[in-house]
Amino acid sequence: MPKLLARYFPIFDWGKEYSKDHLIADGTAALIVTIMLIPQSLAYALLAGLPPEVGLYASIAPLVLYAIFGTSRTLAVGPVAVVSLMTATATSMIAEPGTIGYIETAIALAMLSGVFLTVMGLFRLGFIANFLSHPVMTGFITASGILIAISQLKHILGVPMTGHNLPEQLVSLIEKIDEINTPTLLIGVGSILFLIFVRNGLRSLLIKVGLSKKIADLIVKAGPVFAVAITIILTSALALEGRNVDIVGLVPQGLPNLQTPNLNLSLIRELSTAALLISLVGFVESISVAQTLAAKRRQQISPNQELIALGMSNIGSSVSGGYPVTGGFARSVVNFDAGAQTPAAGGLTAVGIALATLYLTPLLYFLPKATLAATIIIAVLSLVKVKPIIETWQYSKGDFFAMALTIILTLLIGVEIGIVAGVVASFILFMYRTTVPHYAVVGQVSGTEHFRNVKRHKVITDPRVISVRIDESLYFSNIRYLENAINNLVAAHPECEHIILMCSAVNLIDTSALESLEAINDRLKETNIKLHLSEVKGPVSDRLAHTHFLQNLTGNVYLSQYEAYKALTAEKTAP
Amino acid sequence: MPKLLARYFPIFDWGKEYSKDHLIADGTAALIVTIMLIPQSLAYALLAGLPPEVGLYASIAPLVLYAIFGTSRTLAVGPVAVVSLMTATATSMIAEPGTIGYIETAIALAMLSGVFLTVMGLFRLGFIANFLSHPVMTGFITASGILIAISQLKHILGVPMTGHNLPEQLVSLIEKIDEINTPTLLIGVGSILFLIFVRNGLRSLLIKVGLSKKIADLIVKAGPVFAVAITIILTSALALEGRNVDIVGLVPQGLPNLQTPNLNLSLIRELSTAALLISLVGFVESISVAQTLAAKRRQQISPNQELIALGMSNIGSSVSGGYPVTGGFARSVVNFDAGAQTPAAGGLTAVGIALATLYLTPLLYFLPKATLAATIIIAVLSLVKVKPIIETWQYSKGDFFAMALTIILTLLIGVEIGIVAGVVASFILFMYRTTVPHYAVVGQVSGTEHFRNVKRHKVITDPRVISVRIDESLYFSNIRYLENAINNLVAAHPECEHIILMCSAVNLIDTSALESLEAINDRLKETNIKLHLSEVKGPVSDRLAHTHFLQNLTGNVYLSQYEAYKALTAEKTAP
Repeated sequence: MPKLLARYFPIFDWGKEYSKDHLIADGTAALIVTIMLIPQSLAYALLAGLPPEVGLYASIAPLVLYAIFGTSRTLAVGPVAVVSLMTATATSMIAEPGTIGYIETAIALAMLSGVFLTVMGLFRLGFIANFLSHPVMTGFITASGILIAISQLKHILGVPMTGHNLPEQLVSLIEKIDEINTPTLLIGVGSILFLIFVRNGLRSLLIKVGLSKKIADLIVKAGPVFAVAITIILTSALALEGRNVDIVGLVPQGLPNLQTPNLNLSLIRELSTAALLISLVGFVESISVAQTLAAKRRQQISPNQELIALGMSNIGSSVSGGYPVTGGFARSVVNFDAGAQTPAAGGLTAVGIALATLYLTPLLYFLPKATLAATIIIAVLSLVKVKPIIETWQYSKGDFFAMALTIILTLLIGVEIGIVAGVVASFILFMYRTTVPHYAVVGQVSGTEHFRNVKRHKVITDPRVISVRIDESLYFSNIRYLENAINNLVAAHPECEHIILMCSAVNLIDTSALESLEAINDRLKETNIKLHLSEVKGPVSDRLAHTHFLQNLTGNVYLSQYEAYKALTAEKTAP
Repeated sequence: MPKLLARYFPIFDWGKEYSKDHLIADGTAALIVTIMLIPQSLAYALLAGLPPEVGLYASIAPLVLYAIFGTSRTLAVGPVAVVSLMTATATSMIAEPGTIGYIETAIALAMLSGVFLTVMGLFRLGFIANFLSHPVMTGFITASGILIAISQLKHILGVPMTGHNLPEQLVSLIEKIDEINTPTLLIGVGSILFLIFVRNGLRSLLIKVGLSKKIADLIVKAGPVFAVAITIILTSALALEGRNVDIVGLVPQGLPNLQTPNLNLSLIRELSTAALLISLVGFVESISVAQTLAAKRRQQISPNQELIALGMSNIGSSVSGGYPVTGGFARSVVNFDAGAQTPAAGGLTAVGIALATLYLTPLLYFLPKATLAATIIIAVLSLVKVKPIIETWQYSKGDFFAMALTIILTLLIGVEIGIVAGVVASFILFMYRTTVPHYAVVGQVSGTEHFRNVKRHKVITDPRVISVRIDESLYFSNIRYLENAINNLVAAHPECEHIILMCSAVNLIDTSALESLEAINDRLKETNIKLHLSEVKGPVSDRLAHTHFLQNLTGNVYLSQYEAYKALTAEKTAP
C-alpha cells in the first residue's frame, strides 16, 4: 500500500527527504518563475480570449496539484501558448468571446480535458499520445506559432479582427488598416523592440557593466515585467486609455472561488474532440520537456503518472475558475536553471501568484493589451522552426507530406482540422509502410549454418526447397502482401516441393495473419507443396500451439533454419 | 507496349492461345453458371430493393468487361449477397425504395464504386483493402448474413417491414404478425425446405437411382431453378396473385439501354463513403476467391489489375442499368468445378443471361417473391459461421473484440457503422500492439560472438556497457516506449558509460524515431553516456548517412555487435 501510495502520490516519495536546503533552492526558483509567470499568465489569457484573472487562476491550483501528483521534479505547469490558442478556437465555436458563457465554456473545457487525461493515466492509455508523430507535432506547433503571432496583430494595431480562420482574419485586418490606433501601435512596437533587445543584447550589456551572470540572467528573465511596468506607467501618466488604447482594466482582486463547472451532455459532446486534442497536444509537449530535464539529473518520469498529474492540474484549474494548462517549456527550463530541486518549487510559485492575485491586480488596471500581445509574439516566434522542416524533407518525403499537410490545414482552416489531418496522414503512411513486409528468399552460406538473401550473397539453394525469411511481425496490414508473394514464388518455381518460412524476426502473428497462413498452407497443399516453419520464437510458438493452422500444417516446425534445410534437401536423395 | 497492353488487358495474354478445347470447356461451364445465375440475379436484385431486371443487367456487361480486364481465369462476377445488402442500405438512405430515384441511385453507386476501384488499381492503392482485417471481415460477413436472412422474412411471411436497423425492423415485423399471408408463407417455407433437401439429400439420392455424379451435381446446382419453375406454375395455376401473393410481375423484355448515370456533386458526397466501403468489401471478397482458385492451378493473380477489372465491371454495370457487382464465391467455385479454362466462360455466361433477358422474362411474371427470398436465405446461411468466431476468441482476445464490435454494431445500427467501427478498432489494436516494441538487453554468450537476452540466457555483461537489441522497425508509434525504456535503464544503472543499440531487426527509422534517437543521444550526453549503434542494415544506414543524428552521435557505428562490445569493454582496461 505505501508503494501504491508513492506511485500515485509521488509527493510522498520526495517529501520525506525534504530539507532546508531544498526549501532555499525551491524558494529561489519559485521567486524567479513567479516574476516570469505573472505577465505570461495575463498574456496567455488574452490569447485565449479570456479575462486576465482567468490566467492567474490557472497558475495557482494546477501548480499545487502537479506538485502532489507529478513525477517531474522541475516541470512548471500553467497556461501555455499553443493550448491557449486551441482553447480560444474550441471555445469561440460555442460562445461569443467576451461573454460569461465563453468563460464558462473554457472552464468546462479544462474539466473535460482534465478528466480525459486522468482516465488515460489510470487506464495506462498514454500510448494514444504516440499517434501525434514528431513531424505532425512540429508542423502543428510551427503553424500554431504563426497563427498566434498573427492573432495578436489586432492588439498591436488597435483594430478589431474577425473571422474563423487565418485568411478571413487577414482580410478583416487589411480592411481596417486605416483605423490603426497610433498610441497603441507605438506601445506595441515599442514593447516588441524592447523585448528583442532584452533577449539579445541586455545580458552581455549587464555583464559588461559589472553585474554577475546570475543577476544578469534574472534581469533578462524579468524583461516582460519591465515592459509591463513601463507601459502601465506611460499609459496611466499620459491617460492613453482616453485615446482608445485598449487596457486590461479592472482585474478582480482576491483568490478564485471554488465552483463546479457547468457541464451538460450536449456541451460534453461539442467539446470532447477539442478536449481530447488539447489533452494529447498538452501531454506530448509536457512529457518531452519533463523527460529532457529529468535526463539531465538521471531522474525518471512515469508517463502514465504524468497523465494523472496533468489531469488533476486541469481539474484543479477548472474548479478554481481557470482554463486548460500543461507543462511549459520556457518556464520549466527557467525553473530548472534557477535550481529547483523538487515539485515544491511549483507549490511555492503558486503561493507567489496567489499573493499577486491578492495584492497586485489593482496595479494592472492601466496595462495596455498591446504590451501583452508583444510578449506573446516574442514568446511564440521561438515556436516557428524552419530547420526541422527542411531536415524532414531531406530525410523522408512521406513524413514531410504529413507535416506540410498539418501546417497548411492548420493555417488555412484551423487547429483541429490541421492536427487531425496530420494524424490521419501519418496513420496512412504508417499503414502503407507496414503493408509491405520485408522478406527475403534465402540460401545457405557454403560451409556454415547461416542463411542469407539469395540476391545479395553467393549461397547454395535447392530448386525443390524455397526458404523465405520474414523480417517483420505478421499483421492484417502486411499479410496479404506476403500471401501474394508466396503465390508468385510458387508460380515461378514449378519444381518447388517445400517452402520454409524462417520466422526469426516474427514477434507476433495476429488472427488475420494466422488465417492467411492457413490459406497459404491449404493452397500449397493443392499443388503438393509442403509448408514448413523454422526458428519460431517462444511466445509465437506458444500461441500457435493449439491452432488449426499447426494441426493442418502439411510440413514441420523446425527449431533452426539449418535443421529444416538439411532435413528437406536430404529427402530429395531418396528415390 | 505489348507488355503494357497485356498487363492492363489480360485478354491478350490468354486470348492468343485460345483453342476449340477451351471453347468447349468454357461453354459447358458457362451453361451451368447461367442456370445458377438467373435465379440468383433476380433474388439479389430483390435483396437490394431493385426490380428483377436490374439484377439481370448487372449480370451481362460486367461479365464481359471482367473477361477483358480480369487476371483470374475462373472468377465469376455479378450481383452478390453482401454487396446487395450494402447497396440497399446506402440507397435507401437517399431515395424511397420502389421509386425511379432509388434505381438511379443504385446505378450511380455502381459508377462511383467502379471509379473508386479503377483509380485504386491505377494508382496501385490495393493496400487500402488490407485495412479490412480478417476478424472484421468475418464478423461483418456473419452479421450481414443474419441481417439479410431476417430482411427476407417479410417476403416469406408476406407482411411489410419498416425501419432502418434490425431492432426497428423486428419490432415492425412482430407488430404485423397477425397479417401473415398463408399462401405466401406456404410457398416461402416450402421453397426453403425444398432447397435444404436439394442441398443435403438430393445428390446421393440421384446417384443411388443411377445417375452419374456429374449429372447429379448439375441437377443439384439447378435446384433454385426448379424451385422457381415449380412455384411459377403453382402461382399461375392457382391464381395465387389474387390471394395477395406478391409476385415479380412484368419484367421488361430485351437488353438494357446504355445510359450515363445521374451523378451530381451532392450525390457523390452522399454516396462516397458507401461506395468506398462497397468497393473494399467487394474487392476483399473477390480477391480471396480468385487467389484460392488460381492457386489450385498454380496461376497468378495481380491484385492491382483485379481492382481495375472489378472497377470496369462496375462501370459497365452502371452504364447498362445495373448495380454494384463483384466476384462471387459460390458461383466462381461452380465455374471452376465445371471446368472453365479462361475468362471467356464469363463472356459466354453473359450471352446466356442476355438470351434469358431477351426471351425468358415473360415466364417470370408469376414468380413469387417468397421463392426468391427462400433462395436468398439458403444462400446466406452459409455466410454465418460460428467456428471462426470461437477460434478468434481462443487465439486473440483483442482481435475477438474487434470482431464482436463489428458484429454487434452491424446488427444493431447498420452495415456502414459496423464495418467502420471494426476497422477503427483493429487500427487502434494494431497501433497499441506496435506501440510496445520488442527489445531485449543482451549479453555475450561466453566464447562466441553471439549476444542473447540477459533474462533468458547465461551471458557475460559489463556494468559499463549496456547492449539493447531492438526487434522491430522504429516508428512514431513505438519510439516513445523505447525512449522511456532507455531513460529507465540509465536511471537503474549508475555505472553505465556506453549504450549500444543493436539494430539487426530494424528495417526502417521514420522521422519521429530519428528525432527521438537524437533526443536520446543528447540526453545521454548530459550524463556522459555514449550512444553507439551496431548491425545497422544497409538501407537504414544509407538514409541515416547525412542526418544530424549521425553527425552528433556521441559514440560510433559498428558493423557487428561483437565488434562494438569488444571495443567498448576493452576501453575499460585503460586507466
